[in-house]
Amino acid sequence: MALEKRTPDCALRFWARPASVEKTRRAFPSAQVSSHAAEIARNANILVFCCPVGAMEGLAKDVVGSVSNEALITDAGSVKASVVSAMEPIFAGRFVGAHPMAGSEQSGIESANADLFEGATCVLTPTAKTESSALRGISDFWTSVGCKNLVFAADEHDQLVARSSHLPHAVASILAKSVQGSLPAALAVTGSGFRDTTRVAAGPPGMWAEIFLENRQHVLAALNELHSETQVFANLLETGDRAGLEKFLLQARDVRKDLE
Amino acid sequence: MALEKRTPDCALRFWARPASVEKTRRAFPSAQVSSHAAEIARNANILVFCCPVGAMEGLAKDVVGSVSNEALITDAGSVKASVVSAMEPIFAGRFVGAHPMAGSEQSGIESANADLFEGATCVLTPTAKTESSALRGISDFWTSVGCKNLVFAADEHDQLVARSSHLPHAVASILAKSVQGSLPAALAVTGSGFRDTTRVAAGPPGMWAEIFLENRQHVLAALNELHSETQVFANLLETGDRAGLEKFLLQARDVRKDLE
Repeated sequence: MALEKRTPDCALRFWARPASVEKTRRAFPSAQVSSHAAEIARNANILVFCCPVGAMEGLAKDVVGSVSNEALITDAGSVKASVVSAMEPIFAGRFVGAHPMAGSEQSGIESANADLFEGATCVLTPTAKTESSALRGISDFWTSVGCKNLVFAADEHDQLVARSSHLPHAVASILAKSVQGSLPAALAVTGSGFRDTTRVAAGPPGMWAEIFLENRQHVLAALNELHSETQVFANLLETGDRAGLEKFLLQARDVRKDLE
Repeated sequence: MALEKRTPDCALRFWARPASVEKTRRAFPSAQVSSHAAEIARNANILVFCCPVGAMEGLAKDVVGSVSNEALITDAGSVKASVVSAMEPIFAGRFVGAHPMAGSEQSGIESANADLFEGATCVLTPTAKTESSALRGISDFWTSVGCKNLVFAADEHDQLVARSSHLPHAVASILAKSVQGSLPAALAVTGSGFRDTTRVAAGPPGMWAEIFLENRQHVLAALNELHSETQVFANLLETGDRAGLEKFLLQARDVRKDLE
């Protein structure tokens, strides 16, 4: 949708699961839509894999035989080390892993939004094997839909998003589950604070279970870090250390305000 | 501001700290504004204490001598057991504790908003000593600014908000602090998930330190509950239990969706 808006002369083609073909056609009446991946991939200039990360390797193997030697390949997966390990052997130096950091708790073509990528950070994860022309081309592609790109090694990306994206999601889900399990009556007196803090927990469970498992080690490390910080907070509270508590909250506020 | 909009014939009077008197006058040109609390309280029909909960008892003692015997008294504090214990001996059955569950991470008269209370839940915490006419009058007052009222015992309120309000704030602050302490580079790749989950951490540190300390026991209990749930999540992740993880996330999502 962002491409259609910003690069109207681009010929869009969609692979979709059989169940989603019809609604994809309705959303993009002038585009070619099919559930046959190889047919869609044939002679494409740029292929963008937007699917659960666990499904990516299988889909790539389905299409590699019909992909031209000049095609550039990228993806939109939320983890990168496992994706790069799976995709680079298939597409060699023409694959550049990407994680456009945009989205919401919604999913499906019904939630598509042409301005989703406007100003969003996109992390690119080239390796020593990546062709420099592929990196340039894929970088231009993500810029063309509105992203600002950053380059990291795939594992470095996964460490970073474990803290910036996966940990907040885990925390939101754990918080919602904890209150329901301990004192469900409290759910009747929530305000905007509870709603904001748990908003991402409304995201698709299947997709998120996969993300957590694909980035398991870094997410577990991040949860441990969070627990240590929780102990610091609880200790300040237990000892009634008002000055220490206020300093803790002030530092947290400064972190948050710098993100505005 | 909500009263001015919805009850225009009401004569508003404000007590403000000396430093805030001028900006309060600018915001309410036709109201009486003074830093002398007793002067403002004299002959008032309804007194609303909107100040840090730790300052409430002192302010109440300053004004009690000039408050009429027919005046009704309420407050807007975020904890209730300590407030009711402090205020009931001063104003007897004419005090009704209240917690309008509205607000944002902003503070100060500059952030006032006439529609803040529209549809918000207000918890009232009468005791066996509360006069029934006072409960009716204070209930009508909060309804008149747009709130929907619920009645709980003060300690029950504090248990509930420990989970619905104080725990989310603690979690937001701990999350922001944890990421900054462990891997600050991750703050450069945050998206809307991290921003939403930590939004309330931008709230005023002094006010929140006080709220946490006033409700210390229940907040510590809530943090323990959260830790148990975190262990459940971490265990699912560690054992690679995809079905269990997806079920966990699905239950969290259902809790969150029910709040829409």
